Amino acid sequence: MSTINHKFELAARPVGLPKPTDWNFKEEPLREPAEGELSVRILYISLDPAMRGWMNDRRSYIPPVQIGEVMRALALGRVLASRNPKFAAGDYVYGPLGVQEYAVTNGRGLAPADSSKAPLPVYLSVLGMPGLTAYFGLLDIGRPQPGETVVISGAAGAVGAVVGQIARIKGCRVVGIAGGPAKCAYLRELGFDAAIDYKSESVYKAMQQHCPKGVDVFFDNVGGDQLDAALSLLARNGRIVICGAISQYNTTMAMKGPSNYLSLLVNHGTMTGFVVADYLPRWPEGLRDMAGWLAEGKLKSREHIVEGLQNFPSALLMLFSGENNGKLILKVVEP
Amino acid sequence: MSTINHKFELAARPVGLPKPTDWNFKEEPLREPAEGELSVRILYISLDPAMRGWMNDRRSYIPPVQIGEVMRALALGRVLASRNPKFAAGDYVYGPLGVQEYAVTNGRGLAPADSSKAPLPVYLSVLGMPGLTAYFGLLDIGRPQPGETVVISGAAGAVGAVVGQIARIKGCRVVGIAGGPAKCAYLRELGFDAAIDYKSESVYKAMQQHCPKGVDVFFDNVGGDQLDAALSLLARNGRIVICGAISQYNTTMAMKGPSNYLSLLVNHGTMTGFVVADYLPRWPEGLRDMAGWLAEGKLKSREHIVEGLQNFPSALLMLFSGENNGKLILKVVEP
Repeated sequence: MSTINHKFELAARPVGLPKPTDWNFKEEPLREPAEGELSVRILYISLDPAMRGWMNDRRSYIPPVQIGEVMRALALGRVLASRNPKFAAGDYVYGPLGVQEYAVTNGRGLAPADSSKAPLPVYLSVLGMPGLTAYFGLLDIGRPQPGETVVISGAAGAVGAVVGQIARIKGCRVVGIAGGPAKCAYLRELGFDAAIDYKSESVYKAMQQHCPKGVDVFFDNVGGDQLDAALSLLARNGRIVICGAISQYNTTMAMKGPSNYLSLLVNHGTMTGFVVADYLPRWPEGLRDMAGWLAEGKLKSREHIVEGLQNFPSALLMLFSGENNGKLILKVVEP
Repeated sequence: MSTINHKFELAARPVGLPKPTDWNFKEEPLREPAEGELSVRILYISLDPAMRGWMNDRRSYIPPVQIGEVMRALALGRVLASRNPKFAAGDYVYGPLGVQEYAVTNGRGLAPADSSKAPLPVYLSVLGMPGLTAYFGLLDIGRPQPGETVVISGAAGAVGAVVGQIARIKGCRVVGIAGGPAKCAYLRELGFDAAIDYKSESVYKAMQQHCPKGVDVFFDNVGGDQLDAALSLLARNGRIVICGAISQYNTTMAMKGPSNYLSLLVNHGTMTGFVVADYLPRWPEGLRDMAGWLAEGKLKSREHIVEGLQNFPSALLMLFSGENNGKLILKVVEP
């Protein structure tokens, strides 16, 4: 009896928040790997804000997902069968495997995961794309110096929480912005010096209070008014790291650009964007540092795991409503 | 008989474009310089877009001009009498002397001008603040490499025209944006590879046509839609130099931020602001290079001279309507 794969294909390009009708849930028999290929049983799927961008038909850093194509996602699984010499049945691997139960792949972009070194979901979190995004964005673009003030939007998210912890490791004063008291408590638990609850207080006023010497580094995952507040309070030679703009991804109106951008002129400030793929050749360096900090207990990883592939459409929306607490991961099946 | 000084004081903070009632034209007897001071007969006054910013009551890189204070301006004049050992009667000097016929000053910020090396107005143009702004903004922030494409907004202005010429000297492809056929012809005369007339064509489409490999460096004096167009066409690792935003200085609505700023993320781009004062310690280096290029004929300076101090209020507005052709200078009296 052949194995059946269930998968989510992109059915339509969303306008605003993705709707259930933007997806097709399909099943098909799993084919055997051809020469050079391997088949993978997917265990965990990473849900990331970047996925919203991949659904738009727009020039970007990678091609958009095509209509009728399985939705792109990073995922972790176990090799079922392999005709690729780099992988053997039983290996744990992670990479761009898609929103489905099984994948047949040539192995490109796959890396091995060692379950003896870290729990498997951590390879989609601190030791995966969000962790490396935090690492290179903060250290290579933000270049924080000891004693400087680092402010992070989306600070309780998968990237933001790691940025804050690395900034602490580097001796900075760290202020996080998140939505609601539970997330703010989590930031303090992680060692943040201050947490701003954008749902209950003025971000500008709170930032002014918590950053008496201005904002040296602003790591932005949110955009919109939070970016404008940071621009207003930018310190001399301040650096703004543009990692994302989750407040703007589902807008059906024009994007809101940072209207205070002339603060860059006044303060000799700089605003730089990046995606983690820009640092591909340096990933091993990042992973080495991150694994070290994890082992030393200086870095904590928290995952928010939702069970069941069929819950993908609603789980994805949690990223945009801010319901997740920690790195959002969809668990497909018990490992 | 005592000498009478005429001067323009700021009477009110303008809303939108400065109105005649925002100024007080006053006269007063010129006082003698005290110990350490000198008196200067002002010959030429530099009119610059930055002056609009100095009129706002807002935190910036220098304090705003106060109501009742003489309007701040760079100017060039001849020393009348000096009790400051660094200056002697008859010397030409330039610096922040204000919108008036005479100034009494302690000499701070004044530099000597040598009329045998360049015509006097050039010390307010290529060898003055606009020239140094172009020099450091392009070379230190834009960092153009030979063969790269450099696009300049406000390209026929005092700063933009110099940026384009330096970019040519550095072996770049240079595209300028200006308003109207006369200014575009001037850009071609200066050696620009292409000129875009924002008054008669789509800046985005023309930029796309003239920059087949994208925009490596965008030197922005204008902001608004021109900045958004450049962001859309930014090349990988592109650099945006924020020098000004003349399209936004007189707006009475919220500033328009660059809504395409996520192009920075996609292209690993960077947007950096500056003011020329940031480079004060390096001014001699800039002036040496610029004087050399002027002498070699590689750099041309064009001034648009309006006569008569009393014409200051209307002359200043030419900057915002784009009526000036070349560096706008008010001539107070025949040297």
